[in-house]
Amino acid sequence: MSNWSHYQSRLVRLPDLGVSLDFSLLQEYPEAGGPEGAVARAFADMEALEAGAVANPDEGRRVGHYWLRAPQLAPEDIREDIEQALAAVREFSQAVHEGSVAAPGGGKFTRVLLIGIGGSALGPQLVADALTGPEAPLTISFFDNTDPDGMARTLAEIGDDLATTLCLVVSKSGGTAETRNGMLEAEAAFSRAGLSFARHSVAVTCPGSKLDRHAEFEGWLQTLPMADWIGGRTSVMSVVGLLPAALLGLDIDAFLDGAAKMDSATRSRDAQGNAAMRLALAWHAAGSGKGLRDMVVLPYRDRLVLFSKYLQQLVMESLGKEEDLKGRKVHQGIAVYGNKGSTDQHAYVQQLRDGIDNFFVTFIEVRRAGATSGIEVEPGTTSADYLQGFLRGTRSALKASGRQSITLSVEDVDARSLGALIALFERAVSFYASLVEINAYHQPGVEAGKKAAGGFLRLLSLVRVELAGRAGTPLTADDVADSLGADPEDVFHALTHIAAQDRNVSCEPGRVPSEDAFTRAPE
Amino acid sequence: MSNWSHYQSRLVRLPDLGVSLDFSLLQEYPEAGGPEGAVARAFADMEALEAGAVANPDEGRRVGHYWLRAPQLAPEDIREDIEQALAAVREFSQAVHEGSVAAPGGGKFTRVLLIGIGGSALGPQLVADALTGPEAPLTISFFDNTDPDGMARTLAEIGDDLATTLCLVVSKSGGTAETRNGMLEAEAAFSRAGLSFARHSVAVTCPGSKLDRHAEFEGWLQTLPMADWIGGRTSVMSVVGLLPAALLGLDIDAFLDGAAKMDSATRSRDAQGNAAMRLALAWHAAGSGKGLRDMVVLPYRDRLVLFSKYLQQLVMESLGKEEDLKGRKVHQGIAVYGNKGSTDQHAYVQQLRDGIDNFFVTFIEVRRAGATSGIEVEPGTTSADYLQGFLRGTRSALKASGRQSITLSVEDVDARSLGALIALFERAVSFYASLVEINAYHQPGVEAGKKAAGGFLRLLSLVRVELAGRAGTPLTADDVADSLGADPEDVFHALTHIAAQDRNVSCEPGRVPSEDAFTRAPE
Repeated sequence: MSNWSHYQSRLVRLPDLGVSLDFSLLQEYPEAGGPEGAVARAFADMEALEAGAVANPDEGRRVGHYWLRAPQLAPEDIREDIEQALAAVREFSQAVHEGSVAAPGGGKFTRVLLIGIGGSALGPQLVADALTGPEAPLTISFFDNTDPDGMARTLAEIGDDLATTLCLVVSKSGGTAETRNGMLEAEAAFSRAGLSFARHSVAVTCPGSKLDRHAEFEGWLQTLPMADWIGGRTSVMSVVGLLPAALLGLDIDAFLDGAAKMDSATRSRDAQGNAAMRLALAWHAAGSGKGLRDMVVLPYRDRLVLFSKYLQQLVMESLGKEEDLKGRKVHQGIAVYGNKGSTDQHAYVQQLRDGIDNFFVTFIEVRRAGATSGIEVEPGTTSADYLQGFLRGTRSALKASGRQSITLSVEDVDARSLGALIALFERAVSFYASLVEINAYHQPGVEAGKKAAGGFLRLLSLVRVELAGRAGTPLTADDVADSLGADPEDVFHALTHIAAQDRNVSCEPGRVPSEDAFTRAPE
Repeated sequence: MSNWSHYQSRLVRLPDLGVSLDFSLLQEYPEAGGPEGAVARAFADMEALEAGAVANPDEGRRVGHYWLRAPQLAPEDIREDIEQALAAVREFSQAVHEGSVAAPGGGKFTRVLLIGIGGSALGPQLVADALTGPEAPLTISFFDNTDPDGMARTLAEIGDDLATTLCLVVSKSGGTAETRNGMLEAEAAFSRAGLSFARHSVAVTCPGSKLDRHAEFEGWLQTLPMADWIGGRTSVMSVVGLLPAALLGLDIDAFLDGAAKMDSATRSRDAQGNAAMRLALAWHAAGSGKGLRDMVVLPYRDRLVLFSKYLQQLVMESLGKEEDLKGRKVHQGIAVYGNKGSTDQHAYVQQLRDGIDNFFVTFIEVRRAGATSGIEVEPGTTSADYLQGFLRGTRSALKASGRQSITLSVEDVDARSLGALIALFERAVSFYASLVEINAYHQPGVEAGKKAAGGFLRLLSLVRVELAGRAGTPLTADDVADSLGADPEDVFHALTHIAAQDRNVSCEPGRVPSEDAFTRAPE
């Protein structure tokens, strides 16, 4: 049976943006309806948000990422901030390209080392991976964790280029431990190489923050602003994403323009024709408004492999919430995973086609093949034809086994289309949050882990002191826990960690952890 | 309340391997019991498999990946094959390192370009990313898709080094389209650079395959064998993984030895003390034997970021099955995702802690910090302490909100421990498959997509011919579909794809797809 008329009736086309969304293989709500009153509420919420309401009530903050590409719609104070920040990004990146801001040892900067985590790294990683080519004026590396081994590896890749490496330290407050540690590790590496970290570094941070004051005191090259009305996961069109993009020679105007045009197209109150609302409603329908299906994201283009990971953060951190806006326990969220097609067909499409039906796929099709060799792999057929064939084939095979999918098509992967894609999903996330009545803009659940980590780090220091004070004596976790009045399991993990790092601390294993005996060698 | 005695009672330690598994934060079956009779069956199945039974009945094949690290246990014919292949890997990689197999234009090979997909790429990618450092004698790049843009990008990275690049084309049959296309694209690139692809290339394939014959005819440097008793997703300890590992200078003996030791340790019929069985039972308990919880994999080490992706393929392709061994529809599987900690804490731990409770986490702890700078980020505290603190903190925070996790600890990331980790999960997958009575070793569900892709590619050719034959005339999808007797939606996708690639084909968009008019310019 042909799907042709059904396909056409479920297709949303945005011809000016070169974007289309095919919902024909997903069980949508009739007439883009959704839960009673929810669609109207979602439109009203978005209108209020864009008009400057405190859309993040728990933190008492406005939510401004949509203004970044339409400063004329922003409250006046914010408009100026956006325009000034953009001007500063342009000016600074131009100065780097021209060499008026240059490596202290001479020569233009050739590399960027971005130190950040979460939205402060993932957005720039996506933009760099999706859009840069060998012609980029600088190359970029990242410290996006507190793993010293990973940082050492990145430093080894940079090698002697450290002398022409520009560091961007990106942190709203300067209080994010991974970023602070990354900064200190980088500082030490510059110092070992006889270089001044300050003369190589730019801070991207909120005015007045710990990092801002540190950068000023140390005399860094520049400080560029972050704002409290932009969340990390939606910061890629602020200085956080634009500064690295501009340094890499990317067209930030097109990036912003693509997003602005998508925003305009998805402000329509016609739910049926609104691509972002249709996406949000499709997620709602697929998972019964409770996240009962995972979102599998499959872009058929190597350059978009990080887009799946970007959406994982955007969707899960925004929608994975314990309470709704009225304080009821709802345990919302949608799990997101995926890498790229057709590669993933050889990894887990077996399960998607045959196995547990707990997902819907979002295929991302890029119409133009990009850089091609022009060769034919069979008479009349190119590698790009195969890529398209595999997308169509997998979509059909999943349909045949009753699995749901959305197919999103863009013309090209360039700054404009990437901006449009990001804006589309940002708005879909905002709409979905309204549909299920949650706050998409805070992340209260990450504090508990940080707090517990702080407790463990304090315990680690106490255990080290205890070991030193009783050097030469074999101690069990219970011995140390008794002295410290601490939990013996926590103490055991601390002891095990210390013994693995410190040659002066040995462990004589017993049959069970409580029998393991740890000894610090006397000085 | 202290978890201390509970923790100890749920800990499995393998001191010889430096591995431990903490199941204290997951609801296990009492006494490692599981479904009635299932544990005993799983042990019996594994014993039969390792003794050479046809454990993949649908394809009538033996399942030999466990023999790769214990050839003495293999059937005699297979033992010789394993030993000969290993000797060939050693000999060839040594010849490359010494320069007796060298670039035709002079000089040693400096780079490897591996062309493969699925298990033929992901295993080597994992090994390379987890284990290599700047001291590696060669660097490695991959063609792991049929995206010409991605391949062009990889070729641009290789640049002039193409003259000293050794290509490995990895395909059991030579019939995998992505790999065939990659080979042809690489061949064309070598040819454009005035280089002979054959003189740079090694085939890794089944003796007698299409690729084997092609390589022989063209006079490639070498052909090394694959075997039909090894599945792609478990091929990393065959030539597929060992050849690139050896070329990169890695310790393949330690890699195999780590796996062999884990195999020995997990052959025990004591379910309680068997780490692989405990893992399989934990997955079963967490998802009620139906995959009702996703497996989130969080290695706290940058070098292990691909391990999550590796497990995604191993678990999902093995366990995502429509039918059980008796032909009943069961739609099994476990969805797997994750990248690395603590980075992912800033992406989606918000959802894990607060949101939908549809997962269990596997934390992977690496006890030794690896390469470190030795600096303190606070008095007495290192970046590595923070990494450990975040793991412990997140584990506690998830526990506090009732979320389940397993914590797997290894001493180090090196060839031996990576071998052990892979062997542990391979056996857990085999056990789980027995627990739920499915065939873990075939992948019948991927054929439908390939077949549908073939259909689309044939249609694409026909549509091109039709457009050429009616050049100058605007044609709708229905016009072409009528002529060809094809499905109009499929024809529309073909037309859209052609118009995006071919400057001679234009599209005049209508209000709906059936009104879009496509015209091929007359010659």
